[in-house]
Amino acid sequence: MYIRNEDTIYAPATIPGTGAISVIRVSGPDALSIADGIIACKNGNIAGSKGYTLKFGTVTDEHGVLVDEVLVSIFKAPHSYTGENSVEISCHASSYIVSELMTMLHKAGARAAEPGEFTQRAFLNGKMDLAQAEAVADVIASQNAAAHRIAFKQMKGGFSSELRDMRSELLELVSLMELELDFSEEEVEFADRSRLDSLLVEIISHIGRLIDSFRLGNAIKNGVPVAIAGATNTGKSTLLNALLGEERAIVSDIHGTTRDTIEETLNIDGVLFRFIDTAGLRETSETVEKIGIERTFKKISEASIVLGMVDLTRDFESTSETIREIIGKVDFSSQKLIILLNKTDISGDNNNVNIANFIVSALNNKGLKQSSESSVPIIPISAKTGSGITRLRSLLANTQRDLLADSDTTLVTNQRHVQALTDARTSLLRVRDGLASGLPTDLAAQDIREAIYHIGSIVGEISTDEVLGNIFKNFCIGK
Amino acid sequence: MYIRNEDTIYAPATIPGTGAISVIRVSGPDALSIADGIIACKNGNIAGSKGYTLKFGTVTDEHGVLVDEVLVSIFKAPHSYTGENSVEISCHASSYIVSELMTMLHKAGARAAEPGEFTQRAFLNGKMDLAQAEAVADVIASQNAAAHRIAFKQMKGGFSSELRDMRSELLELVSLMELELDFSEEEVEFADRSRLDSLLVEIISHIGRLIDSFRLGNAIKNGVPVAIAGATNTGKSTLLNALLGEERAIVSDIHGTTRDTIEETLNIDGVLFRFIDTAGLRETSETVEKIGIERTFKKISEASIVLGMVDLTRDFESTSETIREIIGKVDFSSQKLIILLNKTDISGDNNNVNIANFIVSALNNKGLKQSSESSVPIIPISAKTGSGITRLRSLLANTQRDLLADSDTTLVTNQRHVQALTDARTSLLRVRDGLASGLPTDLAAQDIREAIYHIGSIVGEISTDEVLGNIFKNFCIGK
Repeated sequence: MYIRNEDTIYAPATIPGTGAISVIRVSGPDALSIADGIIACKNGNIAGSKGYTLKFGTVTDEHGVLVDEVLVSIFKAPHSYTGENSVEISCHASSYIVSELMTMLHKAGARAAEPGEFTQRAFLNGKMDLAQAEAVADVIASQNAAAHRIAFKQMKGGFSSELRDMRSELLELVSLMELELDFSEEEVEFADRSRLDSLLVEIISHIGRLIDSFRLGNAIKNGVPVAIAGATNTGKSTLLNALLGEERAIVSDIHGTTRDTIEETLNIDGVLFRFIDTAGLRETSETVEKIGIERTFKKISEASIVLGMVDLTRDFESTSETIREIIGKVDFSSQKLIILLNKTDISGDNNNVNIANFIVSALNNKGLKQSSESSVPIIPISAKTGSGITRLRSLLANTQRDLLADSDTTLVTNQRHVQALTDARTSLLRVRDGLASGLPTDLAAQDIREAIYHIGSIVGEISTDEVLGNIFKNFCIGK
Repeated sequence: MYIRNEDTIYAPATIPGTGAISVIRVSGPDALSIADGIIACKNGNIAGSKGYTLKFGTVTDEHGVLVDEVLVSIFKAPHSYTGENSVEISCHASSYIVSELMTMLHKAGARAAEPGEFTQRAFLNGKMDLAQAEAVADVIASQNAAAHRIAFKQMKGGFSSELRDMRSELLELVSLMELELDFSEEEVEFADRSRLDSLLVEIISHIGRLIDSFRLGNAIKNGVPVAIAGATNTGKSTLLNALLGEERAIVSDIHGTTRDTIEETLNIDGVLFRFIDTAGLRETSETVEKIGIERTFKKISEASIVLGMVDLTRDFESTSETIREIIGKVDFSSQKLIILLNKTDISGDNNNVNIANFIVSALNNKGLKQSSESSVPIIPISAKTGSGITRLRSLLANTQRDLLADSDTTLVTNQRHVQALTDARTSLLRVRDGLASGLPTDLAAQDIREAIYHIGSIVGEISTDEVLGNIFKNFCIGK
C-alpha cells in the first residue's frame, strides 16, 4: 500500500539555539554517505563504521572555514529508530551552526523532514504500529507520572496487543461464518450461535470499557478538570495563586474556547489538574445575567471536580443562595463537590457554623446524606494566608489515587481511537440484533468485517494517506 | 593548585520539554557505574563497553514502572569532552522523563552540575585553556557567520597560541635579565639593550592591535551599532520594520540601558547589526529639550554607523536644521554616516535636490569633500513601500565586508581579555620608560614578570577560584 521513501531526510531533534548541544537527525538510504560528505572523520569514514558506534569529526564549509566539531552516532538498518540507515549529529547548540549543518545536508542531497516523519517511517517500516507511533508524541508531551505511564504503556504496545487479541477473535468468528456460506446448501452451522452471541457480548463490553476509559484517560493526559465556582470576588484567583505558589512543577496557561477563560494546570502528587475559573455567579438570583450563568453552569457540568467557594465575610443570605445554586448544578453520580469556606482569617466563627448547617440541609434536600465520611468535604480555608490549602491539595490528590493505583487497566487517551472503537461497537451491536432477528449470515459477517476494519484502523493495519497525514502533522519536527 | 573533583556530575545538555529528544550528560569517576545503576542494557553493561560506542537500555523506577528507553553514548577518560569518564543519555524529550532520570542519577550518587562545570572540568583536566573554554560559550551563542568564526577560532586555540608566543618571548627576555642579576657584580649584559627595546616595542604594538580589535570584535559578537537619527515621526520605526520584514533570520529585542530604548538586532549577509533608535531630535533648536538631545547625541557617538534620516515632506528649513545637527555630531574619522531621504513615495522631486545640495555644502563646511565615490551616501528611500531598502541593506553589509574578508586577524571579543592586555601593556610601557631612564634591571624584570602574569591569566595559566567562578557562572547548564 505504501511506497517506501527513497529519499533521505534530516531535522533538528532538539530546539536549535538552546542548551549546550544540538542534535540533528538524518535518516534514509543515503544517510551515511551524505554524513560522510560533510563530516571528515579520522580513522575511517561513517559508512564504513559499525552500527551503534560514535565518531568524532569536523565540518568545514565551502570556503574552507571550520563550522564545528561534531559527534556522530551511527545506526545501520534495520537497527535504528526508523529502521533505515541513520545518524544523529551532535554539535554545539548555536543556531548558526545548526542552520549551517542543515544547509550542508540539504546541498548533499537530503531534504528537511516533515513533522513526525521519522516516526512515520518507523511505522511504515514495521518498527511500531500506528497506536504505538501516536503514543510517542504523548510520551514526549507527558509532564506527570500518570500521563507518562499511560502513554509509555501504549508506546510499548500494551493497548495494541489488547486490540490484536480482540481482532483475531473476531477474525476467527467471521471465517467460521464465511465457511458456513460456502456450505450454505447443506445448512451446516460451524459457528455455534449461542457461543457466538456470548463472545459478541464479551467483546462489546470490552470495547465499552475502553470507550468509557477515555473520560479518565483524557483527564490524566490533559488534566482532571476542576471548576472553581462561586460569587465574584470570593477569592478564586487568590486560591489559584495559593495552589500554584506551593507548586514547583510546570505551570502553563491554556486559553479556553471562550476568550475570557484562562485555565491553569497544576501537577499535584503526579496528577495533572486543570483548574477552570468560572467567573459569573452573582449573589442573588434577581441580578443574574442569563448568559453569564449559563456559561458557568456549562463549565461546572464539564468538570470532574467542583470547588464550591463561599466568602465567609458576606451575609448569610447571599452565601446560602450561592451554595444552593452550586449544589443544584452538580451531578453527584459522576462529579465530586468540595465546599471551600474562604477568608477564615478575617471572618467570625458563628457564620461558619450556620453555613455548614445550611450545606448539610441543602444536601439532604437533594436526597444526599452527609455521612461522617463526608461525601461532600467542607474545608475552611484562607486563600490569602494559605491556611487549609495543604488539606485541599491532598484531598484533590486522593480523589484520583484509586485511578492511579490500578496501573494495569488500559486507558484510551486518543479521540481517534474512541471514534474507531465506537464505530466497531455499533457494527457489533448490529450483528447481535441481526442474528437475533434471523438476519442472513452473510450480512452479519459483513458487519463483523466492518468492526474488524475499525479496530484495525487504530493500530494502522488499515489506514489511508489522509489518516496518516492527520496523525503525523501534529508531531514535533525531528520526531 | 586545583584539586580534581572526585564527584560525578550530571545536567541536561538540551532544554527539557522541547524537541524530540533530550540529552543528559554525566561526567566523573563514577559516571559509568552510576549509569549502569539506573540503565539496564542487554549484552553487557556500560562500564564494560568500549569508549565511543552506543548502548540501548531501559530505565525502570523503584516501583518497577518503565520510565524510558534510552540510548547511551559512552566515553572513557581521557577521551571525552571533560577528560573524565562520561556518558550522554539520550531519552524522549518529556520534562517528566528528564526529571525522573535526573532524580535517579542523584539517588545513585551523582550531583547536579553547576553552570559551565563540564567545560570547567575540561579546563582543569588540561583539555583546553581558559580562553578556549570561554570561547565555547561564545560558539554556542553565535548567531551569525562572523561571530561564529571569531569564537570558533578562539575555541580552537588561535588566540591562545598567539598569546603563548608572546609570553615565551617575554619569558626568554626576563630569564636573560635575571641571569644578569646573578652575575651583577661582573656587569655582564646577557640581554642586548637595543634588541630588548625593539622586542618590547614590537610586543607593545602587538598588544595594542589586540586591544584595538575589541571594538570590532565586540561589534561582531554583539552587533555593529547603528544609530538611527532624525526628527520625530520621520519614519524611523517604519524603516526598522522594513529592514526586519526582509529578514528571515533571528530577530531579538534587547532592552538598552535606558528603559525607553529598544534595540533591534538584524543579520544582514552574515553580519549582526544592532539598530539603536534615537528618538528626541526636534526640528528647531529653539524647542530642543536639553536632556533628550544629550541622550541622542550620546547614542550617536557610540554607534559605528549613523543613519541620518530626513522627511522629504517637511519644509526645507527644519530638514536642513536636522541634517546640520547630525553632521555636526558625527566623528568621520571613526564613524560612517549614511543620509536617508525618506517618503519618496509622497514627496516632490525639487525638495530632494535642494536637500542633497544642502548636505554637500554642510559637509564642505565641515572640511569633508563629497567625492564621486560618495563618502557620505545619500539614499532616497520609502520606508513605507520598501523602495531603496535593498540598496541600504547592501550598503550596510558592504561597510563590514572588508573586516570579514581578513579572517586571519585575531579579534578580541572578551572584556576580561581586554583588561588583562591593557594591564600587560601598562607594565611593558613601564619597562621601556624604566630602561630608558636607567632603572635597575631587577625592577624592570619585575615589571616584565607582571606583564607575563597578565597575559598568562587570559589562558588560565594563572587564575584564581574567584576568576574561574566568574567565568563559568555565565555558562549555560550542561556545558
